[in-house]
Amino acid sequence: MSTTINKQIHLVSRPQGEPTTGNFRLVEAPVPALAEGQVLVRNHYLSLDPYMRGRMNDGKSYAQPQPLDQVFLGGTVGEVVESRNEHFKAGDKVVGMGGWQQYQLVDANQRGVLQKVDTTHVPLSAYLGAVGMPGVTAWYGLTKIIAAKAGETVVVSAASGAVGGVVGQLAKLRGARAVGLAGGPDKCRYVVEELGFDECIDYKQHPDVKSLSAALKAACPAGVDGYFENVGGKILDAVMLRSNAFARIALCGMISGYNGEPIPMAAPQLLLTNRMKLEGFIVSEHMEVWPEALKELGTLVATGKLKFRESVAEGIESAPEAFLGLLKGKNFGKQLVKLV
Amino acid sequence: MSTTINKQIHLVSRPQGEPTTGNFRLVEAPVPALAEGQVLVRNHYLSLDPYMRGRMNDGKSYAQPQPLDQVFLGGTVGEVVESRNEHFKAGDKVVGMGGWQQYQLVDANQRGVLQKVDTTHVPLSAYLGAVGMPGVTAWYGLTKIIAAKAGETVVVSAASGAVGGVVGQLAKLRGARAVGLAGGPDKCRYVVEELGFDECIDYKQHPDVKSLSAALKAACPAGVDGYFENVGGKILDAVMLRSNAFARIALCGMISGYNGEPIPMAAPQLLLTNRMKLEGFIVSEHMEVWPEALKELGTLVATGKLKFRESVAEGIESAPEAFLGLLKGKNFGKQLVKLV
Repeated sequence: MSTTINKQIHLVSRPQGEPTTGNFRLVEAPVPALAEGQVLVRNHYLSLDPYMRGRMNDGKSYAQPQPLDQVFLGGTVGEVVESRNEHFKAGDKVVGMGGWQQYQLVDANQRGVLQKVDTTHVPLSAYLGAVGMPGVTAWYGLTKIIAAKAGETVVVSAASGAVGGVVGQLAKLRGARAVGLAGGPDKCRYVVEELGFDECIDYKQHPDVKSLSAALKAACPAGVDGYFENVGGKILDAVMLRSNAFARIALCGMISGYNGEPIPMAAPQLLLTNRMKLEGFIVSEHMEVWPEALKELGTLVATGKLKFRESVAEGIESAPEAFLGLLKGKNFGKQLVKLV
Repeated sequence: MSTTINKQIHLVSRPQGEPTTGNFRLVEAPVPALAEGQVLVRNHYLSLDPYMRGRMNDGKSYAQPQPLDQVFLGGTVGEVVESRNEHFKAGDKVVGMGGWQQYQLVDANQRGVLQKVDTTHVPLSAYLGAVGMPGVTAWYGLTKIIAAKAGETVVVSAASGAVGGVVGQLAKLRGARAVGLAGGPDKCRYVVEELGFDECIDYKQHPDVKSLSAALKAACPAGVDGYFENVGGKILDAVMLRSNAFARIALCGMISGYNGEPIPMAAPQLLLTNRMKLEGFIVSEHMEVWPEALKELGTLVATGKLKFRESVAEGIESAPEAFLGLLKGKNFGKQLVKLV
């Protein structure tokens, strides 16, 4: 067999403030021969996710820093092309953490490192989105922290994104009112018309807390009972001003502070006066919910009840630029890189 | 029977920023004759508590505003002097919400409005402190929100106060390390030597977040797992910098912002990166825990295992000034006004 060349993207330096494409480098490496127990996967899609920004830094965070001069870590779906492991065979569709590269060589005896998936009713790429980590993230925050009840109002920031879109749709399925926050009229229209949220506020039309708070008041006439936070900063301040007693905030991301900008919370005393609960979480620390969550999400996607959109960049070389765009909200729905 | 005169303190105006004694007025009113079902209580002690500051304002808060030109509401202990209610008789010791006045006339058929207490092993005044609302507040935050486990580190602000002192002692009884924050060397010495905390930091020696954070690092070598917050502002910022993954913050009070000062939280992203939980609460909304909490607290006080100190002002006329002092931290332990 002729040597297969594997194009990879490495992180080669850490960003000072905003990251640039210069922090990444395209590297070509031959695919080595398989050892016993190993599986060779050709990656079809790379998943680009906001949490990856945190891993570019060296500082203390929940995620281990991404090592320099190695393949940039991330979720992938693909197809087994060669196997020396009894549990996998060529043609199997799989989800894993293959990173930003065309091929991954996996010791598939490590539990959980590679999962076979069924693409009969669910498209392969959805296992990186609504039926993958972003979907379970939405499910966990909404179900376990916000614990949305029928008749309540749930607000979601980054509502057109891979996580936010699922949060609002699940809230609706549980009988709650779903109000999104997104950037620009196109995203807002999509959130309401395609995803079925009750309302969506274009935060770009509301540059200050007062204006955003007024828009939230109009969109949430009965106040806010649950908030799924992906952004932080002024958006969080505005939602807190409209929160009801006993409101719950699931803190999933604070993308507004990812480059080290200060993002103070203006009025933490509201957490006391409204007896609110705020909880930060990382879905990978709650593996016990994944089977239940994936079952619900998979069924909803397969039956067309859970909708999502993908922004697809083409080719491994496009990954860094697509990722920087994601951090600026240029994506529309789940950001993927298509390799095959 | 000659008419008994009842001295009362009314709230007559709302503070603009810091409250003054001018917001209060001493009023004399005759004690009316008892109707069927009523009980006349002579108040022995008034309870002064930080939450009362919030009730002086008209704005939205968890507490209903104190009405103007009426007796200032608050907890009291006293003795029944006359009864036309079969459940109470003269000489009974009782705890209630008698407000700032010498006598209260109560329709004692209203459930929960007046509770008989046993002063055989627990002093009457303790029912306003360690075996009363402040004690249950400490118990709830530590037990239900922080859920302190043996080997963990619990930090408490306002550690020499009626609530904070109980928090740290309960934390010690549950096998945790207890670290207090208090103002001045006398209070810190008391917190360690009399209450048995492991350490106490004099926040007045640490005017900025960096210095306070360094002191916390020294006092909490294994980081902070639970924080019972009575103060807010820079103290909260400093504790958050030293918090471990999965730390819990029970938000009981934010006295640093009671006069309307902005008290932003500097780095809310720590709540995410450390997957922290922060929960505001008011103990009167959790009546279901009171029996269990009071049983533990009463036993601990009766057996000398739970210690407390009282600052006692004399006479109804002293209540406003003593209250203003409490808001500035001039009290040492539970602030009371002794009437008899």
